[in-house]
Amino acid sequence: MHKIRVGIVGYGNVGKGALKAIKAAADMELVGVFTRRDPNNVDLQDKSVKVYSVDDAINMKDQIDVMVLCGGSATDLAVQGPAFAADFNIVDSYDTHAKIPEYLASVNAAAINTTAVISTGWDPGLFSMVRLLSEAILPDGANYTFWGRGVSQGHSDAIRRIDGVKNAVQYTIPVEEAIAKVRSGERPIFETRDKHLRECFVVAHDGADKSEIEKKIKNMPNYFADYITTVKFIDEEEFVSKHSKMPHGGMVMHSGRTGENEHILEFSLNLESNPEFTASVIVACARACYRMSMNKVYGAKTIFDIPLSYLSSKDYATLVKELL
Amino acid sequence: MHKIRVGIVGYGNVGKGALKAIKAAADMELVGVFTRRDPNNVDLQDKSVKVYSVDDAINMKDQIDVMVLCGGSATDLAVQGPAFAADFNIVDSYDTHAKIPEYLASVNAAAINTTAVISTGWDPGLFSMVRLLSEAILPDGANYTFWGRGVSQGHSDAIRRIDGVKNAVQYTIPVEEAIAKVRSGERPIFETRDKHLRECFVVAHDGADKSEIEKKIKNMPNYFADYITTVKFIDEEEFVSKHSKMPHGGMVMHSGRTGENEHILEFSLNLESNPEFTASVIVACARACYRMSMNKVYGAKTIFDIPLSYLSSKDYATLVKELL
Repeated sequence: MHKIRVGIVGYGNVGKGALKAIKAAADMELVGVFTRRDPNNVDLQDKSVKVYSVDDAINMKDQIDVMVLCGGSATDLAVQGPAFAADFNIVDSYDTHAKIPEYLASVNAAAINTTAVISTGWDPGLFSMVRLLSEAILPDGANYTFWGRGVSQGHSDAIRRIDGVKNAVQYTIPVEEAIAKVRSGERPIFETRDKHLRECFVVAHDGADKSEIEKKIKNMPNYFADYITTVKFIDEEEFVSKHSKMPHGGMVMHSGRTGENEHILEFSLNLESNPEFTASVIVACARACYRMSMNKVYGAKTIFDIPLSYLSSKDYATLVKELL
Repeated sequence: MHKIRVGIVGYGNVGKGALKAIKAAADMELVGVFTRRDPNNVDLQDKSVKVYSVDDAINMKDQIDVMVLCGGSATDLAVQGPAFAADFNIVDSYDTHAKIPEYLASVNAAAINTTAVISTGWDPGLFSMVRLLSEAILPDGANYTFWGRGVSQGHSDAIRRIDGVKNAVQYTIPVEEAIAKVRSGERPIFETRDKHLRECFVVAHDGADKSEIEKKIKNMPNYFADYITTVKFIDEEEFVSKHSKMPHGGMVMHSGRTGENEHILEFSLNLESNPEFTASVIVACARACYRMSMNKVYGAKTIFDIPLSYLSSKDYATLVKELL
């Protein structure tokens, strides 16, 4: 059997997760990690994995079936996506929702003889699938997406930029009453603050004005001003022991009707590691990407284009027997 | 725009649901209902819908894009599936899990120039999708499927066949403690009786020996003997007022690990009408079936073969913008 030869571009949290997921996949072979840093300075826990400069990738084109792009949406992918798609099959987790159509078009223009599966992960990704599925089945209905309980990196970063803040983490928490309202079938219409709470744990520098920090967080436009936000100051020790993981999750709900009958669909995730789970979705999509490219299904694709059997390493007869 | 012209074969509960779903779909047109009964004796609530004998279907081949088969698996579909697939694109909800591979092969042999999407609905169907997805993403994990709370027609029928029983309904109920165990991440191994309870409401004939009926139910092999079963005798009036609907639902859970981190995926359905929801899934799959046939993707297919965008009436750009 030909193993799918996969390369990883970018070795942050998602890249580390991708490495684990590829090594755990019996039908895949990890070619190496490609980094913009000096390869000699990248310390992989796993010494069997080769590290290359991202500039060497093009010379290894024939040794790589799929390149998994693990950079961030804001700065990395907008450039890397189209650039790599010109020469490689790629998968990424581009997640700036508002800009996805534009990104799709730019990657599609580059992916002439390659397959590029963009915007995978869990949202966009698994949550998108459930939104599409439930709406297609129950057109007389409404979708609701809740995120959390989980760490928002963007919000945590925003707090860390405030003067006097040494460290901070922000948890997004769905409002239980809102979930209950959706379950009741009444199809509520929510304001932003009705759906999520924001809970912040902050380590302040010695002598910093805590009430000033709290005020700045709570009034920060876009990030916090529209939400009910709680701020708790803790010491460094508690921060490290209780808030070093990157849990996340959330829920897509659909409330729909056929005639007189109400139906509720729910899909929820409870993840101890957001980047590792995201990477696991990306790696399953890398398998699908490879198969689509073998079938000459070229261009930019999304999770909406993938027949589910392509995601699994099992053969079709086994899938039908065991999982259908 | 060409509307997808759909026919319904069989006018039981699922057929009635399919009629509602097709009429609600702006991109579909209902050609008519095909029945084995005398068409003059089939009373549709909706007088605008035409009723034909199932024997006339073949003469209307060119007027029908997809035939939706709404019969039962046990007797109807095993014959109708291959028979109709020879001349029509078809969708069905064949749900005898153990015999699906055999059924798939027999339909596939017939579907030379047609597309046949078999075994859709919610289980097999949506639940199968979640089982495949979650296993592909987290191969170090375990799937769990719970059914209910909902009416099992098979178990209700079995009770009704007991001497002295006038009417009966059986609810399958997932055991809350079992669900909690899966959520804990411990990957429990369950016996049959650990996962589901069986709750029976029975109307007895006057003078019937109730304790004898209860004993017969609880000791019935395959159906009840392996479960914790409760039997409650009620009068006809209570039966009609409280137990005439066909609610169902259930949950697929996946407990999986990446490295040291645990992840839990859950997909749950809470349905007021099992046949109407099942029919809604079938009708969404009829849309996908038509599109696959337009692309000359012929043969017997399952939900594992369908790119999700094919299920929706919205165009691709709208799906990406609104739902990805």
